[in-house]
Amino acid sequence: MSSKSFYFSQRAKRTHEHPISYLMAEAVANPDLISLAAGLVDYQTLPSEEILELSKEIFSGGQRSAKNPLQYGVTPGLRELREILLDHMASSDGMTPAELSASVENMIITTGSQQLLFILTDLLVDPGDIVIAAWPSYFVYTGALETLGAEVYGVKIDQDGMIPESLRETLEQIKAEGKLSKVKILYVVDYHQNPTGITLSEQRRPELLEIVKEYSTEHKILLIEDSAYRELTYEGEPPSSIKKFDTNNEYVALVQTFSKTFSPGIKIGYGLLPDELSEPAMLQKGNHDFGSSNFGQTFIYEAFRRGLYKPHVELLKKRYTEKRDVLLNSLEEHFGDIEGVTWTHPSGGLYVWLTFPTHIDTHFEAALFQEAKKAGVIYVPGGFCYAQDRRQEIPMYEARLSYGAVEDEKIVEGVRRLSQAFQSVNKG
Amino acid sequence: MSSKSFYFSQRAKRTHEHPISYLMAEAVANPDLISLAAGLVDYQTLPSEEILELSKEIFSGGQRSAKNPLQYGVTPGLRELREILLDHMASSDGMTPAELSASVENMIITTGSQQLLFILTDLLVDPGDIVIAAWPSYFVYTGALETLGAEVYGVKIDQDGMIPESLRETLEQIKAEGKLSKVKILYVVDYHQNPTGITLSEQRRPELLEIVKEYSTEHKILLIEDSAYRELTYEGEPPSSIKKFDTNNEYVALVQTFSKTFSPGIKIGYGLLPDELSEPAMLQKGNHDFGSSNFGQTFIYEAFRRGLYKPHVELLKKRYTEKRDVLLNSLEEHFGDIEGVTWTHPSGGLYVWLTFPTHIDTHFEAALFQEAKKAGVIYVPGGFCYAQDRRQEIPMYEARLSYGAVEDEKIVEGVRRLSQAFQSVNKG
Repeated sequence: MSSKSFYFSQRAKRTHEHPISYLMAEAVANPDLISLAAGLVDYQTLPSEEILELSKEIFSGGQRSAKNPLQYGVTPGLRELREILLDHMASSDGMTPAELSASVENMIITTGSQQLLFILTDLLVDPGDIVIAAWPSYFVYTGALETLGAEVYGVKIDQDGMIPESLRETLEQIKAEGKLSKVKILYVVDYHQNPTGITLSEQRRPELLEIVKEYSTEHKILLIEDSAYRELTYEGEPPSSIKKFDTNNEYVALVQTFSKTFSPGIKIGYGLLPDELSEPAMLQKGNHDFGSSNFGQTFIYEAFRRGLYKPHVELLKKRYTEKRDVLLNSLEEHFGDIEGVTWTHPSGGLYVWLTFPTHIDTHFEAALFQEAKKAGVIYVPGGFCYAQDRRQEIPMYEARLSYGAVEDEKIVEGVRRLSQAFQSVNKG
Repeated sequence: MSSKSFYFSQRAKRTHEHPISYLMAEAVANPDLISLAAGLVDYQTLPSEEILELSKEIFSGGQRSAKNPLQYGVTPGLRELREILLDHMASSDGMTPAELSASVENMIITTGSQQLLFILTDLLVDPGDIVIAAWPSYFVYTGALETLGAEVYGVKIDQDGMIPESLRETLEQIKAEGKLSKVKILYVVDYHQNPTGITLSEQRRPELLEIVKEYSTEHKILLIEDSAYRELTYEGEPPSSIKKFDTNNEYVALVQTFSKTFSPGIKIGYGLLPDELSEPAMLQKGNHDFGSSNFGQTFIYEAFRRGLYKPHVELLKKRYTEKRDVLLNSLEEHFGDIEGVTWTHPSGGLYVWLTFPTHIDTHFEAALFQEAKKAGVIYVPGGFCYAQDRRQEIPMYEARLSYGAVEDEKIVEGVRRLSQAFQSVNKG
């Protein structure tokens, strides 16, 4: 065997295994474990019957339309699907594409929304550039930022989402450090945020955009609006997108996915991009894979076109409302009387954010996690949802609980086990 | 509207539109055009019936196995599929995985083989690093190299593929320039190469690997073996892979795809990676999309498992043999008597490489292409298949002809039109 190694690129050197891999390995190794950690979706409602029905429609007979989904597609994605999705996005805000200055050329289809987040960031970020994100925020994106060499500045959130004053303070601080020209992206998960379940209020939406514009003094700052959970709003209507206020299609990339609302296995994400980024994003996509699965895109397109998609989302909303309520009721039952334990009450999405008294450490090595694992339940330690931000110390007393893939009785049992672990640690 | 722009990353700035986009636009704009340019596969043989059959098997009944393909998968890909593919790769060389020191942990599944080529290159190449490739070679990969900032050195090929002496000379030259430590990758498309259709001879395979090892003095040079067309060998048995000689699984990444042998629409590629690169590749894949479509992977897995895959490849080989012969016969008929016009006679794959007398310029702006377009046929100008190599001048008198997606009578008519264009230019 050779004793020599490969010489890795700077990017590869900046890439580390995400600690969440440990959680997955634990769950695989111990099938009796109840995982309130995994971000999977509900199994029961995955649309296997719809897929079978669509397969029969699409692939019966040997005509060209049965062959097209199996042939190469084009880099930005199936045009008919992009047209439908453009209308879908605009009409969700009561707008027309023209009112958003948007055309099908601004629509791109990717392998889940993660690939689009990666491509957009790769387009703008050189090592040492700055990305501003809520603190906490979506941790898979944070991993990509580390690889790309971005410096992350975290902005405080409250029950109404990212706080505009905190964003302004952060930008002022960056400006004072002489680094405003390094700011490339503001990343906002604005509906039922992963990990907290919090939604950005209607009022703050144009405010955040105005701040982005105001500080775009040397070049434009991109606002990535990650609306992965927008359609999973269980109560009332979700607020307008931030994109709605970007009527010249200049600053906001609106990113969505079918992973939560239809099937993560088909892995189709999509986005409406500012005009100036559309062609560059297609070119990067061309380098990566010159187009996501035409096959998967066709199923999504046909599900939309044949009217299967929207009723499916309604079904999911009903089902997830029940699951969320099971989780919230269990938390109330087991933690309702405990001083200093609080949790969010999301109106949609797949996550509840649990806050313990500050002396309870939720990390892997600490007692709570170890006791919980022993009792047969795991969660995501909240600290993993915070990007490194040299200005702030990461809180270590929170946890993300997912209810997407867990059956009702296991949610109940999982919370009971967690409370048992908490009791043993809290009195200890 | 704002007059400010986004400030793009160095990578984005290095990325340019590939001229091939122009060919696609031409073909779309003019449906009567016969495209001998597009690298699509045969429509008729796309496995729509197999897909329908598999859909019924997979998605009938509401049991868990009908839901799994629609749920999230894992980053490296469906484990059962990786196991099958490891055996498939090893047994194609009459080896066991153990004889290749390879395990399922070294197998990765990607969105077509392009994504794997990109990830492997991204793992090793910083701007200014060197990638050595055949000259000419596969042009989509060349685009990615440009984005990644690689300097390309082209190695001469003959009818037996890459010439070992030429590879050695190139490495000696790089060494003399004091840049040997910059060499990260040797890229070889070794079966029925895109664009020439040439296969690397059995004898040269271990020779190339030995040269790579010999010049891996400071760090390992990765040999990327792109075997996209290996299974489309029409005559006799294809030679051993280069991977076969890398018995410690140290230097060679063997890359294949189902795009040519089953369906490009499903977009599933895969690779057997050197042990040292396996985990780093998974981490990059995690950043990009944390796993290709589980849905598509399941269809490939079931096609394999249920014995539909191999008979399908046999069918394709038969069909493509016919198409290749139609093209070769047409070329013989129209160009057989013309001094200085030659072409390759590939034993597999989807391309024939046509060489005109050196005074015939095949590029877009030149007379031949313009006359051909007027006559109703397009091809890929050969110059696009050569990476920029400051040591060598790109030949401008060649063309790549694809017969994959073109119907027999259109191949005949396409060559007739091309010969008509050639006649008018050659006498002019």
